[in-house]
Amino acid sequence: MKKSLMAFAGLAALNAGPALAQSSVTLFGVVDATLAHGSGSASSKTFLTNSGFSSSRVGFRGTEDLGGGMSASFWLEAGVNNDNGAGGTTNTNNQSTGAAPPAAGGQGLTFNRRATVSLAGNWGELRLGRDYTPQYWTLGLMDPFGSNGVGTSQTVNSLTVLTAVRASNTIGYLLPRNLGGFYGQAQYYLGENNSNAGTPAGSTKNDGSGYGLRLGFASGPFDVVLAHGLTRYAVGDFHQNNIGAAYDFGVVKLVAHFSFDKNDIATSGKGRGYLVGGLIPVGAGQIRLSYSRYQIELAAAKPTATKFAIGYNYNLSKRTALYATFAHVSNSGGSGQTLNGATLASPNDSSSGYDFGIRHSF
Amino acid sequence: MKKSLMAFAGLAALNAGPALAQSSVTLFGVVDATLAHGSGSASSKTFLTNSGFSSSRVGFRGTEDLGGGMSASFWLEAGVNNDNGAGGTTNTNNQSTGAAPPAAGGQGLTFNRRATVSLAGNWGELRLGRDYTPQYWTLGLMDPFGSNGVGTSQTVNSLTVLTAVRASNTIGYLLPRNLGGFYGQAQYYLGENNSNAGTPAGSTKNDGSGYGLRLGFASGPFDVVLAHGLTRYAVGDFHQNNIGAAYDFGVVKLVAHFSFDKNDIATSGKGRGYLVGGLIPVGAGQIRLSYSRYQIELAAAKPTATKFAIGYNYNLSKRTALYATFAHVSNSGGSGQTLNGATLASPNDSSSGYDFGIRHSF
Amino acid sequence: MKKSLMAFAGLAALNAGPALAQSSVTLFGVVDATLAHGSGSASSKTFLTNSGFSSSRVGFRGTEDLGGGMSASFWLEAGVNNDNGAGGTTNTNNQSTGAAPPAAGGQGLTFNRRATVSLAGNWGELRLGRDYTPQYWTLGLMDPFGSNGVGTSQTVNSLTVLTAVRASNTIGYLLPRNLGGFYGQAQYYLGENNSNAGTPAGSTKNDGSGYGLRLGFASGPFDVVLAHGLTRYAVGDFHQNNIGAAYDFGVVKLVAHFSFDKNDIATSGKGRGYLVGGLIPVGAGQIRLSYSRYQIELAAAKPTATKFAIGYNYNLSKRTALYATFAHVSNSGGSGQTLNGATLASPNDSSSGYDFGIRHSF
Repeated sequence: MKKSLMAFAGLAALNAGPALAQSSVTLFGVVDATLAHGSGSASSKTFLTNSGFSSSRVGFRGTEDLGGGMSASFWLEAGVNNDNGAGGTTNTNNQSTGAAPPAAGGQGLTFNRRATVSLAGNWGELRLGRDYTPQYWTLGLMDPFGSNGVGTSQTVNSLTVLTAVRASNTIGYLLPRNLGGFYGQAQYYLGENNSNAGTPAGSTKNDGSGYGLRLGFASGPFDVVLAHGLTRYAVGDFHQNNIGAAYDFGVVKLVAHFSFDKNDIATSGKGRGYLVGGLIPVGAGQIRLSYSRYQIELAAAKPTATKFAIGYNYNLSKRTALYATFAHVSNSGGSGQTLNGATLASPNDSSSGYDFGIRHSF
Repeated sequence: MKKSLMAFAGLAALNAGPALAQSSVTLFGVVDATLAHGSGSASSKTFLTNSGFSSSRVGFRGTEDLGGGMSASFWLEAGVNNDNGAGGTTNTNNQSTGAAPPAAGGQGLTFNRRATVSLAGNWGELRLGRDYTPQYWTLGLMDPFGSNGVGTSQTVNSLTVLTAVRASNTIGYLLPRNLGGFYGQAQYYLGENNSNAGTPAGSTKNDGSGYGLRLGFASGPFDVVLAHGLTRYAVGDFHQNNIGAAYDFGVVKLVAHFSFDKNDIATSGKGRGYLVGGLIPVGAGQIRLSYSRYQIELAAAKPTATKFAIGYNYNLSKRTALYATFAHVSNSGGSGQTLNGATLASPNDSSSGYDFGIRHSF
Repeated sequence: MKKSLMAFAGLAALNAGPALAQSSVTLFGVVDATLAHGSGSASSKTFLTNSGFSSSRVGFRGTEDLGGGMSASFWLEAGVNNDNGAGGTTNTNNQSTGAAPPAAGGQGLTFNRRATVSLAGNWGELRLGRDYTPQYWTLGLMDPFGSNGVGTSQTVNSLTVLTAVRASNTIGYLLPRNLGGFYGQAQYYLGENNSNAGTPAGSTKNDGSGYGLRLGFASGPFDVVLAHGLTRYAVGDFHQNNIGAAYDFGVVKLVAHFSFDKNDIATSGKGRGYLVGGLIPVGAGQIRLSYSRYQIELAAAKPTATKFAIGYNYNLSKRTALYATFAHVSNSGGSGQTLNGATLASPNDSSSGYDFGIRHSF
């Protein structure tokens, strides 16, 4: 790698004036490669994948100081499958019609993780574009594995609603950070259908539209948050409610969350799940532990998946870590969850898997 | 956002020598989010979209000083749909076979807006790659709305030829800038067919090939330009001719253009259009006004679309603006133009729409 | 182009401490545009393409100093079709099922050229992700035309195996650089099938998996390297063996390589090829010459392609060059190789072509 240095010329500098640091553009990213293995009663699978510890990505972001406490900013972040070079996929309308076909290799760098422009001031932040949904944050932040890799909580893995993690076409408001520990956000997202969509006309005009709300309180070692989300679909709305909490005792940080979902589709029903877990600092690394469970309440059965996960990561630096994770999922009531691409001979069989990898951020 | 600064290392620096600023690489872009609404007699639509004021994009560009007045440069610019994270699409051969299928979400960062390498000197610039066509510039530059958003001129909206705005595989020459106010360019683009393409052999070998010419004169507040373009298609060549002018009176900048197109397809015919408009500075913003009309002369009818558009943008800084645009299009003679995704119950109905958004550049 | 300068803020700086140059992120690339022409007995073709001299690309890469002689690094490099703005395609599993459909224009910026994360020390380098295969390097490096443009060696052009140049899901080890001139690497790549894939179960579980080995010795003007690769396919494994050497006499650098391939598919057979060539410095440029031949030994016939190529490049600077290449390929035994998109009326006809272009790197 060449060591020569140059200053980077950007349009951003044109109007930056003296406040250079406040009007910068940042190139950032994560490249996380994982050797993954999953085993099940029908088959096992070994593969090189990405994002076993942190989500692989490349992004550009920047902030402009507008004066008077106001700022404008942008954030463009793309998922990167660094095992094979392909990009992540997005969904343009929060409906099944808005997703790319699963053409292997047929996807380039897409800002599927986040694509937003914001105005912010002491009143908070107005944010427009593709972003995480408020109802996701509880599940992702209150999980020792942060929704990455084989250890991901079953409360996330069991959700199939398209807006479970992110939504496109969002209009969001975030509370300012100076509210004595309170934080929160409200988000509305559009399905972008014509007013006469569907048969009869107008029956599906709200497909893919919805909203999310989130309110939390953090103080010292303590953090608690609750969230609600609703996505409207012609086949039946999807309701999400969750609450999470964390307490950092120093020798261990305990986290837990509970999730109460409801699908208005006749054959679907309610879903209930929880996670309890912990992060234990050990020298230059940490041990991660979690136990998560998700049960769907159908009329005839209650498919239930229960996962135990344990991991260890060793930090070579703040940016670079080696990690290993093992997880095991048990199924009952007709559930058929598997880990790392394994397959089952029949429902209710169990599956296990591991990740072993390196995460490098820049 | 992290405030830490680092110098950016680039290969460009290796041979830059002392002339650092002349051999820099620039990361640039625009993130423009718009809440858009369109209404028509059959349906209305509300959605979050992009590029209501300026075209959303991310790009890399740079220039190398070769000495003796010569320079080499590159420009890679990709459209970004920052409402949902998807990328723009390109067309590889200026024909319908060269376009991506409309797979929702199935497109990553593509340098669809511009991908060129250039050699320049006091003799002008040789430019190779994907670029705007010369015949587009008249329509885009002499439009208060710059072909962005609901206010885009009907002289652009009514064109369906694939090279109306950009072409791939172009070989272009641009006049130098020191010609006493004269400016211009010539461009040839290739459809890239085999010499025996089509039936009978050779019948479609020129599909998608064409050229454009443009000559203008600008002096002080005055600017006038005319252009001609021809794209060859097996179904019939498409001819474009236009002339535009602008005069900046200070209190208002007036712009106008006229467009004379001809399609050699038997069922198509001539198209004639014009735009008159103005830009009125108001404090930290400006009012934008335009009236545009496009009429197609068929044997049996003359479909005609007439649009009135008014907008206001407030500049929070040179980089960041809030804006609102309203437009109304009237149809007659069987025309069915709509705004912002609305649909009509029958031709000749009218449609209106608005954009409300924020544009941030970097 | 704006000359204003700004420092570039990167997360990389957060933990860099004083060793700034050792923890930098580099934006790099090549934009190479070529006017290409091919002629054959059935048709000719003229087109603007890319990568006639160097592979067009855009990439990000960086290295972090971990102390104690250790470092972590990443490399994300995407092919760019700068004639039309589209991106390159990748293959996610080294099998035909892992390739994108050939949707024209339907591919964005994909890190198809390289996507890796590495740990390195005085023991060598561990590299994970998508990368060149070891067996390719002999053919690419020991070719005056470096596998770019119309002059590419027939020992590369004649290979159809998907891992001939690159593989996804690689786990690689590279020898350190301080071994007295010896260099080398070992690489294993995964096809990522389930253990019961195919019929009967397990029959195709190794599809797309394989490995490559490479060992070389370079000292002063002399460089010799040999490599072996094996990719497993259900239809029959593909074996590659090659040896290459170069000697720089100053007035001419001679290069040669020999390739011995074997395809276990019944109807395929052995392939044997070689290249001899030279690079002759001439003022600010160089002449490039090569003669290459590849013969497939089938039961009934021996299709053979023989190519002669000559080129000249004039360096306007270290970063920017003008170049021209001419090549002619002769076919016998049923071979039907063509150059630059030309087509043949019947096998055993010959084809010729030229490239004329500009290469600019940054």
